[in-house]
Amino acid sequence: MRAEIISVGTELLLGEILDTNAQYIAARLPAIGLDLYFQSTAGDNLERLVDTIERGLARSDVIIMTGGLGPTEDDLTREAIASALGEELFVDADAERALRAFFTSRGVGFPERNVKQAQLIPSATAIPNPRGTAPGWWVEKGTSASLSTGFQYIIAMPGPPSEMQRMWEKEVEQRLASLAGGGVLITRVLKTIGAGESHIDEMLAPLLKSANPTIGVYAKPDGVYARIAAKAPTAEAARDLIAPVEDEARRILGAIVWGADGDSLEGIIGAMLNERGLTLATMESCTGGLLASTITDVDGSSAYFKGGYVAYTAQMKMGLGVSAELIERYGAISSEVACDMARAARESFPGRMGADYGIGITGVAGGEEVEGKPPGTMHIAVHDGREAQPLSYAFYQGRAATKRRAVTTALFLLRRALLARG
Amino acid sequence: MRAEIISVGTELLLGEILDTNAQYIAARLPAIGLDLYFQSTAGDNLERLVDTIERGLARSDVIIMTGGLGPTEDDLTREAIASALGEELFVDADAERALRAFFTSRGVGFPERNVKQAQLIPSATAIPNPRGTAPGWWVEKGTSASLSTGFQYIIAMPGPPSEMQRMWEKEVEQRLASLAGGGVLITRVLKTIGAGESHIDEMLAPLLKSANPTIGVYAKPDGVYARIAAKAPTAEAARDLIAPVEDEARRILGAIVWGADGDSLEGIIGAMLNERGLTLATMESCTGGLLASTITDVDGSSAYFKGGYVAYTAQMKMGLGVSAELIERYGAISSEVACDMARAARESFPGRMGADYGIGITGVAGGEEVEGKPPGTMHIAVHDGREAQPLSYAFYQGRAATKRRAVTTALFLLRRALLARG
Repeated sequence: MRAEIISVGTELLLGEILDTNAQYIAARLPAIGLDLYFQSTAGDNLERLVDTIERGLARSDVIIMTGGLGPTEDDLTREAIASALGEELFVDADAERALRAFFTSRGVGFPERNVKQAQLIPSATAIPNPRGTAPGWWVEKGTSASLSTGFQYIIAMPGPPSEMQRMWEKEVEQRLASLAGGGVLITRVLKTIGAGESHIDEMLAPLLKSANPTIGVYAKPDGVYARIAAKAPTAEAARDLIAPVEDEARRILGAIVWGADGDSLEGIIGAMLNERGLTLATMESCTGGLLASTITDVDGSSAYFKGGYVAYTAQMKMGLGVSAELIERYGAISSEVACDMARAARESFPGRMGADYGIGITGVAGGEEVEGKPPGTMHIAVHDGREAQPLSYAFYQGRAATKRRAVTTALFLLRRALLARG
Repeated sequence: MRAEIISVGTELLLGEILDTNAQYIAARLPAIGLDLYFQSTAGDNLERLVDTIERGLARSDVIIMTGGLGPTEDDLTREAIASALGEELFVDADAERALRAFFTSRGVGFPERNVKQAQLIPSATAIPNPRGTAPGWWVEKGTSASLSTGFQYIIAMPGPPSEMQRMWEKEVEQRLASLAGGGVLITRVLKTIGAGESHIDEMLAPLLKSANPTIGVYAKPDGVYARIAAKAPTAEAARDLIAPVEDEARRILGAIVWGADGDSLEGIIGAMLNERGLTLATMESCTGGLLASTITDVDGSSAYFKGGYVAYTAQMKMGLGVSAELIERYGAISSEVACDMARAARESFPGRMGADYGIGITGVAGGEEVEGKPPGTMHIAVHDGREAQPLSYAFYQGRAATKRRAVTTALFLLRRALLARG
């Protein structure tokens, strides 16, 4: 079935909001047998939005829309679908009740303007949205323009990603999958760290000429990925095509592969720590808490994460047991101090419980020199109780990317230490 | 001038990477007088990529491309532009020297495959890229298909956002602005926190019917934004149209407006702290360091941020001076403990230096109940030395959004405390 995505919102056309939704949905269509042919963005203008939907109805079986379901005057998705289909809007009593209950449960009054979010048309049913006030619409209509099934579908979901994603996963994906027949495209992504993009490309060269599955190599903030993609009539047949290629790629790449598909480096490391009953503590300076925040993005991280310090000043570092002499001799931004921060993080824990591993990060995340060290200077160390493994580099890519790269490198060092421990 | 954006990469079409670049560029075109008419995504396939560029050359004055400039076999942007323009690729000696120097400066060997990144065509000049190995291309060609100037332009930039953004800002934007004549669209975004989207919409209703400037209201993770957009022959004339509307909107909205345009809540608060010579310390549990990381995303935050604790366990909280009795009586996830964490954060600082403000956050960021408290439960407090101002709510939107909302709420509370201090 032919699918098309329409993202709604002038803020998208003006670049004020990132369209994460289109990519999120695009990523999920191949596996349920929907082919994404078109992707477009429409502003908050009724006429142009109706045009866009009408063009979609002339060429696609399924239109997936996000945004424009809010309570304000420029939220026009409902009006536009009604107009494109020539149907009348009405307020649905059940939806209104659910909406009022949502506000009551959060202890706030119901703004009467929000009643707009309880509107439907005869062809639409409401899709529940426990994360927000805007229910989605599932529109199903038998039309002569339909290309394959005799029916056309419009699925309208709210714009906020956390609301849209839950709705997609719980309410929309399976229903669409059951409509679509035909072949599927299944992908398998191997994630590596510790080697550059062109190096990986050279290693995998023997596999790169394959037509089905195909292999692509690309760089991401947490390493270099190799994507194996296979087309087949069924998901099982596609996976059968992928399996031998994946085995060969893993054989070639060895230990630099740290995960696959939805795996995160922090999740993989969390699982390794959990499995071995080991614990972790952090002391970070220039990354300002991003390391701890990343580690605790993993559900269940409280089992192995003892806690962290954001030690922005030399005083705080010394107060936590980092050697004043090392700071004096080498400067706070040095490999020696990173190693001592890693040691202190695991040892000087309040309550003297200690942790098995400590990570220390010190460096320059901003665009100005500090202590004569250039922007992007990073000293990172992991301490396992016997010794510290440090790594240093200088590469400035702007504050956010510089912080992110330091966190990824710290997790890479910890993984290496865990692998070495065996 | 008509502009069009082409994002390159199969990983985009499969949704494996977010296309932040298209939105970044889209946001910057109106102010330099370029009209964005088309936006499309092409995969790593030479034939389809050449097609896409040829279609672009038939309808646009300027094509802005991102991605496909890497060193691997499926990086095809250079080949595709050469083919679309009927020109031959050659290796540029200067570009090759710069590339080899980049690798040498980072202390790594030069992979010969990367020489591909030193290629040019006769119509192209290299655009420097100090943040990565791929120089951009500035292509300028006199063609009969040109719509207005007699010339058409292709600007190809690397895909990694930190490289692309620097190249855009330092090398591309001003050159494009000098090519484009005609009118501009200027926008002014007022950022609010503390009132809902429909509430703001009602407050601004008298202004919403204006045709130029227009006003739109939309919700974002850090509050609700009102965007005022004006079209005029010059930026100055557009700003003159915006000024009275902005004044009126600010009068109506009052103190809930915390900033405008590129302001971040953490940046605004940092400036307030800096100006008054006040300092801040944090103790966070369920947000796991995201609060500290957000605060330290601001350049110069070391002037007012004393440091932070990621106190994931009751032991660590007590070790840092949080009352064991309060934890025992109310549970670690309680408003009382959040207030005491805020107090302890400012008081029990290593080195006994203390801070003027302390922030405490405790709650449930994961999808499971903790201590019988539902997912999304949050207790947040700001302590100013005399008393703690707490705020509690329960709203689960998935782990990442739940953490983010708690951090925004904490910054909102701190801003309110700073405003009250006067």
